[in-house]
Amino acid sequence: MARIWSTELASHTGQTVQLAGWLHRFRQLSHVSFLILRDGKGLAQVVIEDPEQVEALAQLPNETVLRVSGACVPVAAAPGGVEVHGPAIDVVSVPVEPPPFDLFRPTIKAQLPTILDHAAVALRHPRLRALHRLAAASAAGYRHALQTREFVEIFTPKLVASATEGGANVFPVDYFGRSAFLAQSPQFYKQIMVGVYERVFEIGPVCRAEPHDTPRHLNEFVSLDFEMGFVEDHTTVMAMLTDVLRGMVAAVREEAPNEVALLDLALPEVPSEIPAMSFQEAQRMITAATGEDVEGEPDLAPAHERWLGEWVRQAHDTEFLFVVGYPMSKRPFYTHPQPHHPALSNSFDLLFRGLELATGGQRLHRYEDYLAALAARGIAPEPFAGYLDAFAHGMPPHGGCALSLERWVARLVNVANIREARLFPRDINRLTP
Amino acid sequence: MARIWSTELASHTGQTVQLAGWLHRFRQLSHVSFLILRDGKGLAQVVIEDPEQVEALAQLPNETVLRVSGACVPVAAAPGGVEVHGPAIDVVSVPVEPPPFDLFRPTIKAQLPTILDHAAVALRHPRLRALHRLAAASAAGYRHALQTREFVEIFTPKLVASATEGGANVFPVDYFGRSAFLAQSPQFYKQIMVGVYERVFEIGPVCRAEPHDTPRHLNEFVSLDFEMGFVEDHTTVMAMLTDVLRGMVAAVREEAPNEVALLDLALPEVPSEIPAMSFQEAQRMITAATGEDVEGEPDLAPAHERWLGEWVRQAHDTEFLFVVGYPMSKRPFYTHPQPHHPALSNSFDLLFRGLELATGGQRLHRYEDYLAALAARGIAPEPFAGYLDAFAHGMPPHGGCALSLERWVARLVNVANIREARLFPRDINRLTP
Repeated sequence: MARIWSTELASHTGQTVQLAGWLHRFRQLSHVSFLILRDGKGLAQVVIEDPEQVEALAQLPNETVLRVSGACVPVAAAPGGVEVHGPAIDVVSVPVEPPPFDLFRPTIKAQLPTILDHAAVALRHPRLRALHRLAAASAAGYRHALQTREFVEIFTPKLVASATEGGANVFPVDYFGRSAFLAQSPQFYKQIMVGVYERVFEIGPVCRAEPHDTPRHLNEFVSLDFEMGFVEDHTTVMAMLTDVLRGMVAAVREEAPNEVALLDLALPEVPSEIPAMSFQEAQRMITAATGEDVEGEPDLAPAHERWLGEWVRQAHDTEFLFVVGYPMSKRPFYTHPQPHHPALSNSFDLLFRGLELATGGQRLHRYEDYLAALAARGIAPEPFAGYLDAFAHGMPPHGGCALSLERWVARLVNVANIREARLFPRDINRLTP
Repeated sequence: MARIWSTELASHTGQTVQLAGWLHRFRQLSHVSFLILRDGKGLAQVVIEDPEQVEALAQLPNETVLRVSGACVPVAAAPGGVEVHGPAIDVVSVPVEPPPFDLFRPTIKAQLPTILDHAAVALRHPRLRALHRLAAASAAGYRHALQTREFVEIFTPKLVASATEGGANVFPVDYFGRSAFLAQSPQFYKQIMVGVYERVFEIGPVCRAEPHDTPRHLNEFVSLDFEMGFVEDHTTVMAMLTDVLRGMVAAVREEAPNEVALLDLALPEVPSEIPAMSFQEAQRMITAATGEDVEGEPDLAPAHERWLGEWVRQAHDTEFLFVVGYPMSKRPFYTHPQPHHPALSNSFDLLFRGLELATGGQRLHRYEDYLAALAARGIAPEPFAGYLDAFAHGMPPHGGCALSLERWVARLVNVANIREARLFPRDINRLTP
């Protein structure tokens, strides 16, 4: 008899089935007892009436691994409308100790550091594993949206000789006695690959040595990057990102309906055109509304992003907002200026639920513009020779963006701390497990 | 008029079309000239008869970025059966110098180091970009095969506090003044996640500080990993890997037919059951056939893997061979021994065209077995606390494997040097571009 998943029980009523999984909970009541078995997809309720079985199960710690076979019976009052009766139970593997916290309660009753220390157990909690399942569905939606639009997946190096953004916030690596760094982004490589396939994307880890201990910072995260050639300007990228976001929401809805239900999520609607506002207009509105004079500041503070998130929800009935035209001074050297206001950039941030989710824009594409941009910032061009090679040999107008998978999941689920949206987070204090 | 890809020309005959791309080659003949335009997908032949256009194009270096619109005309003698006539040509972007080698010749006439130094240009060569397109198709096939078999994609940390395999060959990272390493594999994390989803996979970078300068070694590569719970033993993993390989070949065939044709590839057939041979039997056969006494050696040498590749091709008419039952002494501490021969392991290597492509097996699943295995190797358990936590709290029999994307592509295309199968390779001497 082939083993089935707990989620397949409802289509096997009237049959003898085999399940396998973990002892999630054993509830001894006066007349009948319930074994709740958790497998990789869901929970199954198994009715135990045999006193010997009750006694044996009562001895087993939670998380004991079991195989259970029995009759699959429709019972209206049971979770999912189905139960297993008259089970034969085999013990596969016995834990050496009970879990450090109860996995059967609605939430784990422990502080976040304890939960993260015991990630190997905590991630088995139905809510946590549902949350991380959304990351997989979102990544699949991102990939699918781009593949159907002729983007080619690339895998670029994470060990690099020079820092993408000019030297700050990189982790140094000892590379056979030479100095190397962990890539902060695949920026240079995805631009080079525009010269090859025109449209490319990458889903991969990036590491940033930002020495901040806040609920918004991770030192390693998954970056969803794309880059495309022959753009009009940054608005071509914004339109593509809008399509991609719609694909991500659709994939979460289609691939993870049980998880969306378990987490009681209201998935966002991505409008056909996400409202866009200039950085200057955003600053004027924030100044007018909050009384705080932010005009002239080079960037938006987190509180101001939240304010804009509230504003766009009320004014445009959406949870997404593009802010465009950031000052060139706050953008990296490869950023394309606005043709008629060269102090401002053809770049954007995307806010989702009041948090910066993605950053992108048009890039420079002429070799001489790169040399000038590096010179203006006092950066020597030599370390960038392999990158500048692309521009010396003909590149079209192009642009792209990057989105943090963890920020996306964090805002989708509305967790208080970004660490909750990352499997095994790395922060300034945490390198384990 | 919307721009179309060169590969779409054949379905637009009789229409006026717009193309965009790079000046791949300009061929001036006595009566007529041909502009070969390369875009992200293929080549288009544009007929130039206007003497002024001929003169203008003759001045442009190869790799100039162009937009071309004209009449799409069926011409039996043209490549792909179609040409563009009477074009209007806009110059989008002009290179500052000609390419360091000709991209229009059948192969690049330069040594591998020169090609790798100028990757930003070399990757535009039709053969090279076709080769790397196979990596994307293969990864998509791997992912699709596993997703349809209920595997969940995971993204695990690449910055780790302890080395997976016991300390050798790791790159040290300065992590805010603390000692960290680049992950050699996602092994610990994918095993932990078997306790969460039962079936998981990851496609991601791994870094190994192996100080070898050979045509077989890369210091960073893409590892295709999966891990699954409730296995019988390593043979369950071997059967899954066989299915996955079949999915990879199918994806290459379906997603990249133009590239397969361009590279003139004979794609392998994956048999319904890949032949398996014990390590001891392999050694006996090699000893008998070569006269070289390899019995008692702990591993197979590359020449012996090639011999086995030839043997299985002749004896079983296949290019795949599993070698099973390697000595425990050569396998990592988490390897499950053979129940009746504990000096041998429930592990395997998969050879493809005479090269080790994948390694996998059954893992230990009992906490006490881990403590014993670490103690037997003189490894302290404390650095592995977050990993051992999974086994202390109930884990089923499980196993998995890892496959190098670059080795797969290298053998598929039959390149002499693994560096050719990697975008921007990293080796003991190379960190750029």
